[in-house]
Amino acid sequence: MPGRAPIAIVGAGLVGSGWALVFARAGYAVRAYDPSPDVRMRILPWAQVSLAELEQAGLIETPDAILSRITVHDTLAEALIGVSYVQESVFETIEAKSAVSRELDALIGPEVIVGSSSSGIPASRFTENCAHRERFLIVHPVNPPHLVPVVELVPAPWTDPAAVESVSARMLEVGQVPVRLTREIDGFVLNRLQGVLLNEAWALYEEGIASLADIDATIAHGLGLRWSFMGPFETIDLNAPGGIEDYAARLRGLYAGMVRMPPPGPWPDAVIARAADERRAELPVENLANRRAWRDARLARLAAFKKFQGLGG
Amino acid sequence: MPGRAPIAIVGAGLVGSGWALVFARAGYAVRAYDPSPDVRMRILPWAQVSLAELEQAGLIETPDAILSRITVHDTLAEALIGVSYVQESVFETIEAKSAVSRELDALIGPEVIVGSSSSGIPASRFTENCAHRERFLIVHPVNPPHLVPVVELVPAPWTDPAAVESVSARMLEVGQVPVRLTREIDGFVLNRLQGVLLNEAWALYEEGIASLADIDATIAHGLGLRWSFMGPFETIDLNAPGGIEDYAARLRGLYAGMVRMPPPGPWPDAVIARAADERRAELPVENLANRRAWRDARLARLAAFKKFQGLGG
Repeated sequence: MPGRAPIAIVGAGLVGSGWALVFARAGYAVRAYDPSPDVRMRILPWAQVSLAELEQAGLIETPDAILSRITVHDTLAEALIGVSYVQESVFETIEAKSAVSRELDALIGPEVIVGSSSSGIPASRFTENCAHRERFLIVHPVNPPHLVPVVELVPAPWTDPAAVESVSARMLEVGQVPVRLTREIDGFVLNRLQGVLLNEAWALYEEGIASLADIDATIAHGLGLRWSFMGPFETIDLNAPGGIEDYAARLRGLYAGMVRMPPPGPWPDAVIARAADERRAELPVENLANRRAWRDARLARLAAFKKFQGLGG
Repeated sequence: MPGRAPIAIVGAGLVGSGWALVFARAGYAVRAYDPSPDVRMRILPWAQVSLAELEQAGLIETPDAILSRITVHDTLAEALIGVSYVQESVFETIEAKSAVSRELDALIGPEVIVGSSSSGIPASRFTENCAHRERFLIVHPVNPPHLVPVVELVPAPWTDPAAVESVSARMLEVGQVPVRLTREIDGFVLNRLQGVLLNEAWALYEEGIASLADIDATIAHGLGLRWSFMGPFETIDLNAPGGIEDYAARLRGLYAGMVRMPPPGPWPDAVIARAADERRAELPVENLANRRAWRDARLARLAAFKKFQGLGG
């Protein structure tokens, strides 16, 4: 099991700030840093508001104690003092990830592990030249990490398996759900699954089979209900009398027959513009921020619902 | 708006019985028929148990009154007396659908509409020779329809648009969420979206990228949380500062890069066998029925949660 030394949060936008809550909620001292003084200034006020929401949803009981565990630091070196784990969540470009990894590589003590929140760029693209590259890996959350528990652990070819093991244990300990990939693949698992579904959804919309809102409804009032507490394999395992093998025997021909040939290409400009018009008629751009806050409040209540139903995370 | 005449349920296995609850719950007299006397005998006891579960979840208040609206009939002709709508849910083969459609075609009164619960076979394959084929269409629910509200409406080329309009209004009236397809397509929308996600999940499993349980977790503790109350388009609309157009500009290249070439073929036998071993180690085949009951109880509570959060259906 990983120790109880403090955790460093490096890059403290929305993702990094969510991570600060995850670790502080689990009892860790959290040392947060962001290169931007403006961003640093927003960490604690945002955490206070978010903790009040978590308390209201019944997910935490001691918001003040949790908030008191988070400290904000003006330099990277100071944020790293005494930590055993660094969660890095800087802007997602190879340049930014490479730069921060080099800095961390030069500053981290022995045995410190660095997890990057990268959602698509694998660690092999930005840690190759690090002296301690065996202690870097991808630790990819869904936003916001304090409300959506899944975390993808993706090792680079040179990541020490013990580092993956350690992060996996730590994620379980703080209440997240670690998913372990055996090796790097574009988009990891989560965004590959999201990607194929989006590609098909765009194609159906382009062909005029159904409206944007109706395609959304097939998920939000259909498939998404089961998928909020069981994955696609368990879903089909329960959907045939004899389980997954029986389901496959009955239906794999149907699914094979739906495969598009050639596969869907990039989403076309004209289709995107039409979809954007449809969405903006439904939700003007100035209301996006409000709707995101609405979503996060629903996610908090859903997390509480799952917790009390024994379905968590 | 459709009238309040009784509704006929033809084919009363799990799907048809669920439909009986949907209509009875909304105040309709429901006339149920199944060619099998054994199946007919199970309709009311099953409905009684299911209504008790709905009451416990806070979704209904008067189980006895709802149950009293369902009557079971020994002949198709008797079940059709006075009805304005028929929900057909017989076994899903072209032969069975053709036979029941011919029978219904000969018996239904003027203006009666027939919706088939078919999950994949389009109506054009089994209603072409019906005299009243303009009043037949696909009305595809997710199982169980009294807990999962989405319904796909799929017209055959000869279906009267007024029939689609009428069923859409009726589905809204009884608390379902109708999704309208403009024309037939293999798998409709819902199973096409499920299919591409399953095809990718099987491919990732076959390649050894992650375990079955871990692939499931990326949905059940990740993507499925949002998707239980918003569809894939609304999800990406909220996931970039400027909305869906901004998201597409940032990420369509990433998703295009994940497209498999050639596309996934049918799920291979050996991979299915390995997945089945993994599932059966987790859940022995004799426990499948219990786990389905567990799933439906969770779906009932999720439906109640969504209702009280104003997220319904």
